[in-house]
Amino acid sequence: MAQRGVAGPEIERLIQLLSRLPGLGPRSARRAALHLVKKKETVLAPLAQAMGEAADKVRVCSVCGNIDTADPCMICTDPRRDGSTIIVIEDVADLWAMERAGVLNAKYHVLGGTLSPLDGVGPDDLTIDRLVARVAAGGVSEVILAMNATVDGETTAHFITDRLAGQGVKISRLAAGVPVGGELDYLDEGTLAAALKSRRPF
Amino acid sequence: MAQRGVAGPEIERLIQLLSRLPGLGPRSARRAALHLVKKKETVLAPLAQAMGEAADKVRVCSVCGNIDTADPCMICTDPRRDGSTIIVIEDVADLWAMERAGVLNAKYHVLGGTLSPLDGVGPDDLTIDRLVARVAAGGVSEVILAMNATVDGETTAHFITDRLAGQGVKISRLAAGVPVGGELDYLDEGTLAAALKSRRPF
Repeated sequence: MAQRGVAGPEIERLIQLLSRLPGLGPRSARRAALHLVKKKETVLAPLAQAMGEAADKVRVCSVCGNIDTADPCMICTDPRRDGSTIIVIEDVADLWAMERAGVLNAKYHVLGGTLSPLDGVGPDDLTIDRLVARVAAGGVSEVILAMNATVDGETTAHFITDRLAGQGVKISRLAAGVPVGGELDYLDEGTLAAALKSRRPF
Repeated sequence: MAQRGVAGPEIERLIQLLSRLPGLGPRSARRAALHLVKKKETVLAPLAQAMGEAADKVRVCSVCGNIDTADPCMICTDPRRDGSTIIVIEDVADLWAMERAGVLNAKYHVLGGTLSPLDGVGPDDLTIDRLVARVAAGGVSEVILAMNATVDGETTAHFITDRLAGQGVKISRLAAGVPVGGELDYLDEGTLAAALKSRRPF
């Protein structure tokens, strides 16, 4: 941080708040703040306005947990989306990643995390009940569990599978295997084992 | 960027503006935007407000070129600062770096860059005239040229030295040598040569 009061308190506060963003340390927060105040008209003012508007308008979708300016969100209300498939993800960032991949025209369900007894995250802290209710309401034929490939992700997937049992809905998981462009030499044994186990005819 | 209109236009615009900040690429801009909209009350709103205030209040000091909310800036008007020494730096970021080092209680002069014929930067694009006028106004005994140790920095230092000739002011440069904690093996030949040439009695 700029010290001994070199910059006014407004700039100090700007640096302090910017340094709390993911990916910005104290040093890059200073650089970003300096860039902002140097380009006051072209960068700082538009960004301040965009943030103000986002703060006013952004809300969490009450159906799927997505973040949008509309509730229900644009994906939930999009008539071109296939509502019979629900992709369950941990976080909105994962929803964005899925949309960038752009493979399925499905709808989503954001869990808000994974079950994690060590961190005190239980089923009531996630939106699992709401997912079960969505499936129970009918019209859903497949639920794709797209949690991260971690222990907590696995645990959560099993828990959700149990909760959806008997609803007559198909439950699937993401394939595990070698990432596109991945080199075997750099892959961990678990990934290699999964890729071998799920090998496909060529 | 989130695609196919997953997030509302307000969030898209936020991501786009954030990705223009130094140190933030498209990916980290998305992460930062998501963090912001998820923590609307505690992170987004305060940052939007801080940016708005900075946009309103920040200005360039008409004396030294520093960026502050006051003009002249806090350093120029600080009675505890020794105005007889002026440290000349290229950029406000360098001023902040000097203040973090906190060695000299001097005043500053921000050039706004270096002479660079290739990039079309001439003396009139920098605040050299204003520096000469500050020195001519009296009360200055030493000018420390603290430009970056680059070819353009050197050229600019020589140019300023010529312009200040005959004003009876002492002109000095930053020492060149081994950085604190630096290992000889990793230093370039130029630095080693400079460190040898400026060797000190032990």
